[in-house]
Amino acid sequence: MSLLVVGSVAFDSVETPFGKADEAIGGSAMFFSTSASYFEEVQLVAVVGDDFPEKEIDFLKSRNVDCEGLHRVEGKTFRWEGKYGFDLNEAITLDTQLNVFGDFHPRLPQDYCDADAVFLANIDPDLQLEVLDQVRDPKLVACDTMNFWIDSKPERLELVFSRVDMVIINESEARKIADKANVVQAAREIQKMGPRHVVIKRGEYGALCFSDDLIFFAPAYPLESVFDPTGAGDTFAGGLLGYLVGQGSIRPRDLRQATVVGCVMASFCVEDFSLEAMRKLDYDIIKRRFEKFQRLVSFEPLELLDQ
Amino acid sequence: MSLLVVGSVAFDSVETPFGKADEAIGGSAMFFSTSASYFEEVQLVAVVGDDFPEKEIDFLKSRNVDCEGLHRVEGKTFRWEGKYGFDLNEAITLDTQLNVFGDFHPRLPQDYCDADAVFLANIDPDLQLEVLDQVRDPKLVACDTMNFWIDSKPERLELVFSRVDMVIINESEARKIADKANVVQAAREIQKMGPRHVVIKRGEYGALCFSDDLIFFAPAYPLESVFDPTGAGDTFAGGLLGYLVGQGSIRPRDLRQATVVGCVMASFCVEDFSLEAMRKLDYDIIKRRFEKFQRLVSFEPLELLDQ
Repeated sequence: MSLLVVGSVAFDSVETPFGKADEAIGGSAMFFSTSASYFEEVQLVAVVGDDFPEKEIDFLKSRNVDCEGLHRVEGKTFRWEGKYGFDLNEAITLDTQLNVFGDFHPRLPQDYCDADAVFLANIDPDLQLEVLDQVRDPKLVACDTMNFWIDSKPERLELVFSRVDMVIINESEARKIADKANVVQAAREIQKMGPRHVVIKRGEYGALCFSDDLIFFAPAYPLESVFDPTGAGDTFAGGLLGYLVGQGSIRPRDLRQATVVGCVMASFCVEDFSLEAMRKLDYDIIKRRFEKFQRLVSFEPLELLDQ
Repeated sequence: MSLLVVGSVAFDSVETPFGKADEAIGGSAMFFSTSASYFEEVQLVAVVGDDFPEKEIDFLKSRNVDCEGLHRVEGKTFRWEGKYGFDLNEAITLDTQLNVFGDFHPRLPQDYCDADAVFLANIDPDLQLEVLDQVRDPKLVACDTMNFWIDSKPERLELVFSRVDMVIINESEARKIADKANVVQAAREIQKMGPRHVVIKRGEYGALCFSDDLIFFAPAYPLESVFDPTGAGDTFAGGLLGYLVGQGSIRPRDLRQATVVGCVMASFCVEDFSLEAMRKLDYDIIKRRFEKFQRLVSFEPLELLDQ
């Protein structure tokens, strides 16, 4: 199986109450593919400038990420600068420099067009559609988006939604797209736009997965030290889709596990700046945290109420 | 076993995007005792005016709530008026009339002083201390509080915390008391003030229970229609403590189940205005929803990662 991701690779400068990272490696496709690489082979489509370090591309290759679609062009790599307040809940964007990303049009290498699964990270819906026009017969297509596109290109976004199997978005964005304050109603509304599966990211509260009649609530792990939430959403999507594609099926049982795997990977991501905490994982570490998640939410059936 | 609650009984006038309730029955002790009554005998200490309907006291008695401590005095019952916005997350208080509650000092009937467990609902910490001075040897004492007391009587509140076994509070209040943005750190900080068990209410995101080394994450049920969140927190506490006292033990296993029972009861509470949805429950209905909670969060262990 193969999992194609199209998104951004960037330098992030981030300040949190716990420290500062200057021009650290980031971008949706970077977080996604690192996370997914623990479960499935990933094909990466993105663009970087001539200032992007070769050793980071080597890192991706070492993780079995196919970088044929990672185009290097003249100019500077996409840069984002942001800051988090005391509660780490929302990033304030201080600066965005699109640089080489400004002219980005995803061109898929020939063998990427047969990808089994596709993740369209949060980019312009028009670019997401360009990707969909290039892939042949993927079994699973998922997408993310953000407020900016909901406001500026609602019709193009609806077209994207009508062509994907799964939407993975933040709770506030789900409410906005669906114009429903109630999260269940919002998910049902989005399902009506096309995607069979809707996964709603709730930050430190975990995630909700809706699929046909299934509603599954995955917790976030209550960590004593959260350093930097940047990239947690894409890391979540990477874990979820990587695991799902690796399983080769989308039964409710797989969706439940995959949503938890997403939360597991995100729980590593936030423990350090940039990709740092995710560079050194292995199956054993991931599995042990997965088991912690299981203990976190497990409880016995009621018995004494029968008396 | 017996479970004593001291708190308010009130008339609530509530407006939500889904409707309006005028002078409906409310108050922390009212929600708590109705909820707890499904699991344990409750002794209620509160005050009402001469305008409080006798049939509501009959309702409590029919639910096995001992109303000897519910004092009726001359004057008007406590009134609260509030409004919820689109997302139902926070109530805006429009009006508060303490009325007879303004001169309230809890006087416990003789046999209440031997209560096995006590819940000090969100009232003046000085009144909470007056209750603690009257009870003899309760096995479990829990309390709630709110921002108003954290700001105005921090030292009295710390004294209360040093004398209770369990604190059940909202997430934002836990962060404020502990001066920690991180919820795990906040809970650990509160534990240092005295209570062995800290339960943090997160509204539509469920609840977290901390006890010694235990961390348990209970989900809230994602309901398609939430009518009125008023009283959900006290209903949660009622279910949690009612179940726990009914079990007669506070093992981690009981705490996990009790926290879920709290969420189950709160999920009924929000489905209608006032106490309406909670008047007509029975063990079967409660148990079926408990089972729905179990399906909501259950997932299989990872296997394929071993390959």
